[in-house]
Amino acid sequence: MKTGVIIGTIVATRKDDSMVGHKLLATQQVDLNMKPIGQVLIAVDAVGAGVGDYVLFSTGSAARNSVQKPKSSIDAAIVGIIDGKDIHFDVLDEIGGDK
Amino acid sequence: MKTGVIIGTIVATRKDDSMVGHKLLATQQVDLNMKPIGQVLIAVDAVGAGVGDYVLFSTGSAARNSVQKPKSSIDAAIVGIIDGKDIHFDVLDEIGGDK
Amino acid sequence: MKTGVIIGTIVATRKDDSMVGHKLLATQQVDLNMKPIGQVLIAVDAVGAGVGDYVLFSTGSAARNSVQKPKSSIDAAIVGIIDGKDIHFDVLDEIGGDK
Amino acid sequence: MKTGVIIGTIVATRKDDSMVGHKLLATQQVDLNMKPIGQVLIAVDAVGAGVGDYVLFSTGSAARNSVQKPKSSIDAAIVGIIDGKDIHFDVLDEIGGDK
Amino acid sequence: MKTGVIIGTIVATRKDDSMVGHKLLATQQVDLNMKPIGQVLIAVDAVGAGVGDYVLFSTGSAARNSVQKPKSSIDAAIVGIIDGKDIHFDVLDEIGGDK
Repeated sequence: MKTGVIIGTIVATRKDDSMVGHKLLATQQVDLNMKPIGQVLIAVDAVGAGVGDYVLFSTGSAARNSVQKPKSSIDAAIVGIIDGKDIHFDVLDEIGGDK
Repeated sequence: MKTGVIIGTIVATRKDDSMVGHKLLATQQVDLNMKPIGQVLIAVDAVGAGVGDYVLFSTGSAARNSVQKPKSSIDAAIVGIIDGKDIHFDVLDEIGGDK
Repeated sequence: MKTGVIIGTIVATRKDDSMVGHKLLATQQVDLNMKPIGQVLIAVDAVGAGVGDYVLFSTGSAARNSVQKPKSSIDAAIVGIIDGKDIHFDVLDEIGGDK
Repeated sequence: MKTGVIIGTIVATRKDDSMVGHKLLATQQVDLNMKPIGQVLIAVDAVGAGVGDYVLFSTGSAARNSVQKPKSSIDAAIVGIIDGKDIHFDVLDEIGGDK
Repeated sequence: MKTGVIIGTIVATRKDDSMVGHKLLATQQVDLNMKPIGQVLIAVDAVGAGVGDYVLFSTGSAARNSVQKPKSSIDAAIVGIIDGKDIHFDVLDEIGGDK
């Protein structure tokens, strides 16, 4: 899964039936320092997330599974709202020496 | 899903049977400021889109699902025509501080 | 799907059984101005393409579907021979203003 | 599969049901010289790995398979803890000449 | 599929059951001029390849199919040993003019 921030919504009146009823959330992928990386994806919501939320998202079949629509045209979904993290950036330096 | 603009069509007289009958739409991926990013994909159309439309597209199985051809050789499809967006680019700055 | 040009063939006497009987076509991905982009993929052929052809290719399950081998180890296939295109690069400028 | 180092954990109280009970491990992809490359992924754990471990991870269906949850919204998982490697960087030079 | 050179092996005593019994081959992706491109992947072997071999590899379900383990956590596999190639780099120039 990857981390992102929901920065808005998209409206597509004409869309595939399998997306009807789903909010289309513009999700900016961010690194663990909350810096934007990569592209903005449009994801459906599986956990009640909204604009401003720091989230976890999945792509491909995992996204379809999260909204129980394995045969849909959905390929990205919000699957978690992040409310904490414990990151040890120093670990990479320690490991770098003895492996 | 990702956002793009349809910039033309491709003709392939000799093509896989599963693509026969589908328009092959040259789709330039764009960011939320409509700037081209990444490659031009060739997508089939699932929602009646045409050249000049601002669209949502899916790839992989999601694309095949959108035209009800799960066993086809299609791997990209237009799944929505975008007619509105509400984007808060400032959200990233607010979030950057307190998470 | 993506566009490419077939620039040669690869020989692999020892290969997975599911690839036996398939030409292994070295395919250079190109943009719509025929400029090489990204990597050279090795694809099987599903439409009778050969060296020098301007082609459409699919990856993943779509590739396996094109040669009716869903359980094979194939992950890229030529699925169309391009013999025409109608591209409106100006569309991006028009769109850029009013969306 | 790819190699990475687990640098921390993520907490998402509200998340897809299929992820409940799984540690969410922040995994920094590294090259064979332990240099960070690419993004940090959030992976579930299938082999009892923890912060500081040098690991092997899979993505997509392979990740779901590793925790026996093929219909889940998981798309990355730790599938091995690396405790040795035998790398011949010189091989590329030897090969470069005669192929 | 993509081309690579096997540059070594990885040892992971604790790994997903579906990988037990498989050599874990560190595979450096190379272009058709044998120049390293992209990342080193860890692949299982489906054709008896070893360190120093110039190979063809597949990813995703194709990799699982090559070792008849569709429900495994494997997502990369060596599926061919390259012993010849016939590449026409000039083709791109010829094509560039008249398409």
